Amino acid sequence: MDELLITSPANPRLKALAGLRRRRARETEGRTLIEGFEELELALTAGVVPRAVYYCPDLMADPDSQVRVIQDVARRGAEVIRLGRAAFEKAAYRQGPDGFLAVVDTVTRDCADLMVPDNALILFCEAVEKPGNLGAMLRTADAAGVDAVIAADPVTDWGNPNLVRASKGTVFSVPVVSDTTERALGWLAAHDIPLVAATPDTELEYTDPDYTGPVAIAVGAEKEGLSDRVLQAATHRVRIPMVGRANSLNVSTSAAVITYEAVRQRRTGNGPG
Amino acid sequence: MDELLITSPANPRLKALAGLRRRRARETEGRTLIEGFEELELALTAGVVPRAVYYCPDLMADPDSQVRVIQDVARRGAEVIRLGRAAFEKAAYRQGPDGFLAVVDTVTRDCADLMVPDNALILFCEAVEKPGNLGAMLRTADAAGVDAVIAADPVTDWGNPNLVRASKGTVFSVPVVSDTTERALGWLAAHDIPLVAATPDTELEYTDPDYTGPVAIAVGAEKEGLSDRVLQAATHRVRIPMVGRANSLNVSTSAAVITYEAVRQRRTGNGPG
Repeated sequence: MDELLITSPANPRLKALAGLRRRRARETEGRTLIEGFEELELALTAGVVPRAVYYCPDLMADPDSQVRVIQDVARRGAEVIRLGRAAFEKAAYRQGPDGFLAVVDTVTRDCADLMVPDNALILFCEAVEKPGNLGAMLRTADAAGVDAVIAADPVTDWGNPNLVRASKGTVFSVPVVSDTTERALGWLAAHDIPLVAATPDTELEYTDPDYTGPVAIAVGAEKEGLSDRVLQAATHRVRIPMVGRANSLNVSTSAAVITYEAVRQRRTGNGPG
Repeated sequence: MDELLITSPANPRLKALAGLRRRRARETEGRTLIEGFEELELALTAGVVPRAVYYCPDLMADPDSQVRVIQDVARRGAEVIRLGRAAFEKAAYRQGPDGFLAVVDTVTRDCADLMVPDNALILFCEAVEKPGNLGAMLRTADAAGVDAVIAADPVTDWGNPNLVRASKGTVFSVPVVSDTTERALGWLAAHDIPLVAATPDTELEYTDPDYTGPVAIAVGAEKEGLSDRVLQAATHRVRIPMVGRANSLNVSTSAAVITYEAVRQRRTGNGPG
């Protein structure tokens, strides 16, 4: 395959690549970065065709087998660029890069683009701040078979490289959308999808509602939790029982506990209890 | 109160403090660091008396009220040392420090030190590598009312500052021990505590066992999972159903999902199903 080789860390292309670490550049260009072999493979499996793939055989754990992925993406039409070690390390976002970096189109869908599956199971994340938490929730959503993850009034964009990394690439396999809280609530209402909202200020436990029908599970920002608007729109407000001193589960842990309660009810067909 | 003021970032005491970032120094001195106001408050609530507290009013979010904590720990016998801003930032481990740093004795208990409560609920973590994952599991253990967390064949010590931080200080409120896998399994057997071990290689689902009696829940290292020794010693080997492509929940998420299934069964009194 024809390919470009860049060895200078000062190469302007690498600067443009590093620029994608900034949200504004990602939004202006509609592109983001995938870093790491495992993440790239997950994106490819999900049908993503990268715009470009940058690679560095010197940094690969297993160049002989991994370089086949480069040939594969080149066949699919992606531009492939080989980087010298110094150049790659300059462009890399993470410490200890593994020799793979890809530029892909960002996910910019909103609720209007979302298909409503039968018996929808939706995860609704309002104003979650930490990319690592959103990434962890995507892994859970992927594992649990969640039909869509809605970022309502998002603080982080789906292209944030730390999110892509924490999600292990599942941001490309799980249907994700971003929208305002208002439009997201409107979308749920228009499709008759009940909303179960997590909050400490309620007596109903998360195991009480019936999740065997269509349902959306809502969790809020790390510190503030869900907005009053979401809590008021909720069909059920539920809490996870906590007995400890710190008295707060991480938001992604809370989302996992409630989501897997929904999975349990759906698999056993038993409903709550 | 009498107090020492250090303004030079080159002060040898600060070097010794920074040295506690290294595991060997923590183990040699039997001390570790707590960083952050919230974490310090949780440790104090759990009855920890720090050896020393370093503080910097310039960095505090609310010096007027927060400085009372300093007076409180001084009354309890802790040495208090005020640091200039440059000196504090030199000693601080995290970015954006909030003006609180404390030296405390490390937790070095093993299974022999563990009390066996009625109807014990134990979390057994074998060879988990990332301090952030152990910290997240401690938050879950605290919230769920887990009686003890056992680090079997630990890779990280309980004094690791990233673990202390990720645990939000719950490492000081949840009973934690470290021991070899062999001794930890022996301890469970000696106390007739059944072991439920998480692994992808089984057909039994995590919702199938009965968790209403004494039980230990085992999770393994991020990549390798549990050792054969633990899997063979387990009363039940269980999997969390996963339908996605990435096919792996984070270890702390898995621990939370199984632990809260135990909590659900115990609260409803219903057992599995």
